Amino acid sequence: MRNCVIAQSGGPTSVINASAMGVVSKNKELKYYDKVYAGINGVEGILNKNLVDLSVLSYEEIENMKYTPAAGLGSCRYKLKDATENDQEYQKLFQILKEFEIETFFYIGGNDSMDTVHKLSNYVKEKGEDIKFIGIPKTIDNDLPVMDHTPGFGSAAKYIATTVLENYFDATVYAKKSAFILEAMGRDTGWLAASAALARVNNKQVADFIYLPEIIFDEEQFIKDVSKKLATQNNVFIVVSEGIKNEDGKFLSELSAETSKDIFGHVQLGGVGNYIKQILLNSGVVSKARAVELSTSQRCAMHCASQTDIDESFKVGEAALEYSIDGENGYMIGIKRVSDSPYVSETFSLHTSKVANSIKYFPREWVNKEGNNVTIDAVNYALPLISGTSKIKIENGLPKYVKLEDLL
Amino acid sequence: MRNCVIAQSGGPTSVINASAMGVVSKNKELKYYDKVYAGINGVEGILNKNLVDLSVLSYEEIENMKYTPAAGLGSCRYKLKDATENDQEYQKLFQILKEFEIETFFYIGGNDSMDTVHKLSNYVKEKGEDIKFIGIPKTIDNDLPVMDHTPGFGSAAKYIATTVLENYFDATVYAKKSAFILEAMGRDTGWLAASAALARVNNKQVADFIYLPEIIFDEEQFIKDVSKKLATQNNVFIVVSEGIKNEDGKFLSELSAETSKDIFGHVQLGGVGNYIKQILLNSGVVSKARAVELSTSQRCAMHCASQTDIDESFKVGEAALEYSIDGENGYMIGIKRVSDSPYVSETFSLHTSKVANSIKYFPREWVNKEGNNVTIDAVNYALPLISGTSKIKIENGLPKYVKLEDLL
Repeated sequence: MRNCVIAQSGGPTSVINASAMGVVSKNKELKYYDKVYAGINGVEGILNKNLVDLSVLSYEEIENMKYTPAAGLGSCRYKLKDATENDQEYQKLFQILKEFEIETFFYIGGNDSMDTVHKLSNYVKEKGEDIKFIGIPKTIDNDLPVMDHTPGFGSAAKYIATTVLENYFDATVYAKKSAFILEAMGRDTGWLAASAALARVNNKQVADFIYLPEIIFDEEQFIKDVSKKLATQNNVFIVVSEGIKNEDGKFLSELSAETSKDIFGHVQLGGVGNYIKQILLNSGVVSKARAVELSTSQRCAMHCASQTDIDESFKVGEAALEYSIDGENGYMIGIKRVSDSPYVSETFSLHTSKVANSIKYFPREWVNKEGNNVTIDAVNYALPLISGTSKIKIENGLPKYVKLEDLL
Repeated sequence: MRNCVIAQSGGPTSVINASAMGVVSKNKELKYYDKVYAGINGVEGILNKNLVDLSVLSYEEIENMKYTPAAGLGSCRYKLKDATENDQEYQKLFQILKEFEIETFFYIGGNDSMDTVHKLSNYVKEKGEDIKFIGIPKTIDNDLPVMDHTPGFGSAAKYIATTVLENYFDATVYAKKSAFILEAMGRDTGWLAASAALARVNNKQVADFIYLPEIIFDEEQFIKDVSKKLATQNNVFIVVSEGIKNEDGKFLSELSAETSKDIFGHVQLGGVGNYIKQILLNSGVVSKARAVELSTSQRCAMHCASQTDIDESFKVGEAALEYSIDGENGYMIGIKRVSDSPYVSETFSLHTSKVANSIKYFPREWVNKEGNNVTIDAVNYALPLISGTSKIKIENGLPKYVKLEDLL
């Protein structure tokens, strides 16, 4: 028998299952592996011998899983210990992989997971084991270096831009000075918040200000900027990354817990959005403000996913399967942009060491001089990635999603 | 000249513009009024003579406005004073309406606005003025009596059910005991939260518990219920109305500000969702919990609106225009359900006094015995109202919405 296993790690996205199904589908076509297993709940599940056979899925079931959001194979936050310190866990893992006659291990995840692939492939080399580790990228954060963008980003960007657009219409119905603050994910990088710039009416961007973790947030300047904007318009629309920091390098979300008080002296907890809101209310520039946190919907709203992202994520899975046949251990698949107009992309392989523990920041040259918005370059970059309405099946007025356990 | 004016009041929905455009479109066909004005920002705008002519809109522009969310004509929270106390404002209003040769005033809104229509029509009767006031219902809350449902509810219900479904997939990826809490709007009634019951996988409802304002929330029982559920599954999914109250009749959102503390003694503010989350964490039944507040998106997410709701809202506007020609002062249009399968509805007229200051509560017989979920009757009621994917235009991967000022 010659088998392979797929496992997922970290936070879900709308399109992880598309990548997993790309692997399953390509093997159905090429018939290289006898069985394609899923490790349920990532490495943790494999260590518990919780493997299920995905080769039994029909093309129709593959299609249904491809259009189901979040991690259909389950996920984990489990990090393998360093093999140089203690390789007991590694030995256990290899023992189980051998037992299931695994030739290739596909790991779907972000920087951390690619680091795991890197470590495992090194360990294999040292020990002379015959198991290949291949990485498949996944993160809405879009923070993996070398590749043009990550599977998952386009769908999150599309959801954020759509939500910004709709909330802009909602936020501007009253003839009263007010501020609307929308908080996007992005602890280290501003790719997600920046995608709010895609939201436009009559080609005019609706977000007045966009704040990214890459730029120091200056409270006083912020109040001045908002105040100036409110001199010429009733409503100010602000988008903010959860990870913005002040000049001391401190997360505003942490300050939020410590110092934010409303005008009655009540402590105000919550995310950065609420903190920003309180700054504005306390400063007196507005008496009405609302903060909305997009939270988990931005990583699972398949009904609003980008079909381009879904297709690319599927192709990345297919490419990983193909690469695994003759490719080298410790490599992963990335996406390269071939042309902008018409938009064309292709997959390529790269060593996981180039991605492991490395972060691709939002480019400074795509941020305006004042540091409170992004330039048209950011829009042009993201535009092709959000194109295409997701081809989900609808049943009784709602998306038809499936649970893996119901298919097996 | 024989003109009419449309004004909107209160919180936006995805389909208010559909109703307004129904009025404009029907008049284009019947040519009864010379001009169809919009009062910008409701009564407040009319009092400032801020009226614009909507008759100039082409059918294509009407279609674009119909598929734009929120209150395209602007809105206000302005409440007219009681005429018996002081009718100066009424006199000013009538003077302006006469100046613009208004025969009919269409007011789009909820209970409060229908009360305004009622009062104005009474005033007219007393003073022998010749202006007709006609109500057009609008509220995502679905709390207007007499009619089967309100324009706006179906779209909000569809968005909530879709979001519940997708977040359920997101919330269940880890093999770790956890709770996910989703907070829906609904200060007085539980219609919105109850629509979460529509979210199903393999015909099994994904929300384990749904809490409505109509049922007293018992903290101890809640902890017991969740604890019991966690004995047989890893993740518990909870949906809660913002308006739930305890046995003293106190809103939990108010208690939240007063007493909620985390295990370190920090005060935790925020909505009911966060309060519930803190209850669970403090009780120790879970160590991991997340609360998500749907906030304004549930009333403006046109990309996920119900086409049935859009069509009905448009028809309500058309019916209001037609009714105004020979109909009586102080009436409004409602929606009646003619049959469930196939779903057929029609419009009818009713006096605004039947709706003004009255609330349609979620029926007790559609709540389970334990008071912590809804029955299949709630699902059957709401199912036809969420059907049909909204036929929005897409441009550059995002919905194409328009601003009224760009059309005039």
